[in-house]
Amino acid sequence: MYSKVITNPRFLVFTRSYINLTSPRNQVTNHHLHHPSRTRAAAAATTTTMDPPGTTVVRNKQVVCKEAISSYPRASDLRIIDTSTTSLKVPQGQEALLVKNLYLSGDPHMRGSKFKNRPRLFSSGPDQPISGFGVSKVVDSGSPGFKAGDLIWGLTKWEEYTLLTSFANHVKIQHTDVPLSYYTGLLGMPGHTAYTGFYEVGRPKKGDYVFVSSAYGAVGQLVGQLAKLMGCYVVGSAGSKEKIELLKNKLGFDDAFNYKEEDMDAALKRCFPEGIDIFFDNVGGKTLDAALPHMRSHGRIAACGMLSQYDLEQPDGIFNITSLLLNRLQMKGFLVFEHMDLYPKFLDLVLPYVREGKIVYMEDIKEGLESSPAALESVFTGTSAGKVVIAVAPE
Amino acid sequence: MYSKVITNPRFLVFTRSYINLTSPRNQVTNHHLHHPSRTRAAAAATTTTMDPPGTTVVRNKQVVCKEAISSYPRASDLRIIDTSTTSLKVPQGQEALLVKNLYLSGDPHMRGSKFKNRPRLFSSGPDQPISGFGVSKVVDSGSPGFKAGDLIWGLTKWEEYTLLTSFANHVKIQHTDVPLSYYTGLLGMPGHTAYTGFYEVGRPKKGDYVFVSSAYGAVGQLVGQLAKLMGCYVVGSAGSKEKIELLKNKLGFDDAFNYKEEDMDAALKRCFPEGIDIFFDNVGGKTLDAALPHMRSHGRIAACGMLSQYDLEQPDGIFNITSLLLNRLQMKGFLVFEHMDLYPKFLDLVLPYVREGKIVYMEDIKEGLESSPAALESVFTGTSAGKVVIAVAPE
Repeated sequence: MYSKVITNPRFLVFTRSYINLTSPRNQVTNHHLHHPSRTRAAAAATTTTMDPPGTTVVRNKQVVCKEAISSYPRASDLRIIDTSTTSLKVPQGQEALLVKNLYLSGDPHMRGSKFKNRPRLFSSGPDQPISGFGVSKVVDSGSPGFKAGDLIWGLTKWEEYTLLTSFANHVKIQHTDVPLSYYTGLLGMPGHTAYTGFYEVGRPKKGDYVFVSSAYGAVGQLVGQLAKLMGCYVVGSAGSKEKIELLKNKLGFDDAFNYKEEDMDAALKRCFPEGIDIFFDNVGGKTLDAALPHMRSHGRIAACGMLSQYDLEQPDGIFNITSLLLNRLQMKGFLVFEHMDLYPKFLDLVLPYVREGKIVYMEDIKEGLESSPAALESVFTGTSAGKVVIAVAPE
Repeated sequence: MYSKVITNPRFLVFTRSYINLTSPRNQVTNHHLHHPSRTRAAAAATTTTMDPPGTTVVRNKQVVCKEAISSYPRASDLRIIDTSTTSLKVPQGQEALLVKNLYLSGDPHMRGSKFKNRPRLFSSGPDQPISGFGVSKVVDSGSPGFKAGDLIWGLTKWEEYTLLTSFANHVKIQHTDVPLSYYTGLLGMPGHTAYTGFYEVGRPKKGDYVFVSSAYGAVGQLVGQLAKLMGCYVVGSAGSKEKIELLKNKLGFDDAFNYKEEDMDAALKRCFPEGIDIFFDNVGGKTLDAALPHMRSHGRIAACGMLSQYDLEQPDGIFNITSLLLNRLQMKGFLVFEHMDLYPKFLDLVLPYVREGKIVYMEDIKEGLESSPAALESVFTGTSAGKVVIAVAPE
């Protein structure tokens, strides 16, 4: 008989062999661990079973999506379940890593869509733990490249422990003199996205005019700061007065405008009388359409996201695409996973800035998996006070 | 007093000094030259004046646009005038070339538009000779890089003689074992455009799936053949049954479809079950929008022209731009003038094919400037039998 609590199919194979080996299963103890740090609630109520001798099986709390969602996740779409268990060992002979998730990252790509050709990177199905980036510690390794105790970041599941069977793009964290949580943001996927789009697609030169949409997002904030550090002129767009103030006064943007209050074309004319060399676009749609005629000859558009489009029944039309031809623009979509070879170069550039305090970075860290439904919703409602991070377990 | 026949402002400066030096002007003779070749009508009725001694002044027949046009030129928009004159000498001290135009090229960019951000490369004003590419012979040179007798191709005026004051992008013709008229098409701007877009933007690999819109145009024909010679799979779209037949049976395209008869999405699905790696786009609009979702990951779109858009009051919207993001596409507009450094490489590739007869190329050569109004209109009505060339004077 198979245990009913196993809901994640990728544990099923392991569980079969486990059950064949060991019967009956004995629940041994309940640990109520004390977490002195901000991760208090996270690892509470962990249930440990041991069988066969030497194999630790623990309850594995998970964040699941109630059903397939067609938009961004509301807190009510998510629930916490603690009916699953996992062994803390990688099944023998399997090239996998058993990791303990320390920090999970709430990011704008974590959403559903009812349309084909739109992102659905969020959930593999109802009652499956959702996917996202995180910082994890290797508990057991079935791969020669990793050993117990290694700290890594990459795509994981929103649960306490994850058996990673796919980790080619995971990065071993070498520098721990900076907060580990930074590897969910500034030094992780969003940071590397900002770097890749800005440097590889944008090909900036000192003095370039740079426009960043959704500039207050985790990616946009860093793009703007990298551009300033390079001697560019940078303007960002965002959707609230508060964000505009912070972009201008805290994050060093030369200018910023609220796209909800100001006509986009007029704002771009005002902010870029000379035109735009690099447009780092996180939103697409009307913003992209408005920016196209303001691009200078040989301008580059890094298409990083199209946040404005994912929920629309009919996507916005782009009517100014002739500008791309007449001004010999380049527009390129990119996915940061495909540029992992650039990550060391990115760290070489950004780590010194982080250590010297030359980059402003704000986190909004919530404690415990229980906080994740509300925390993830805040990514999309724009109500978080910084990069959304869930601290799951103590470092 | 200034002569009333001088309508081209760039001759005015010269004429001023000429008139200050010489008065009165004496009309000497009328030459009715016999042209045994196809250029008979072209250079007929040339009027020559000589003054001062040693300076030959000739009447200079011109093709002018009656008024600014807002669409493509109809034959009735153009007229031939022979009221202008030109000296056959470059004014002393001027870095210019006085050239005799041999072949003029009718190309789709030669049009007007009433909209900003659309091409208006055609005419500098009413009663001004229109601009276009051509093959010319240097009559007198004020530049150390050129001498009398040199054959060149580049942007010139539709007239018998032109004083070129801007010729940085002109190319000296080195290979005359191929028809000179080819330098208006296959070996000139359209050919170099095909090469630049396909190789530089498209970055083809053997086996790539290539889609060419307006495939029967001068550029499209060569793109398709270059792609076949490289081992790609090539499909073209065009607007008539005859063109589709020729693309498939004469030009070696693997497949072709008539966008006026077949639903574009269905046609692309049928022709590209594996998707498109390179889209060489000459038309934009609905064709571009239809092609976007059929692009494979990392596909490249060479935006060469947007023929479908130039006359529209409201351009077509592009609704599938999210494909660019999700499939990490690159879309790039380019202008061949900016890639003249590649021209020798282009010739190295294409000349052997031309000599070996491995490239099919059709010209529709009309004789004499008088034929140009109808010839130019045929570029846009699709009624020409090949690349539209006007033979103005014997080689």
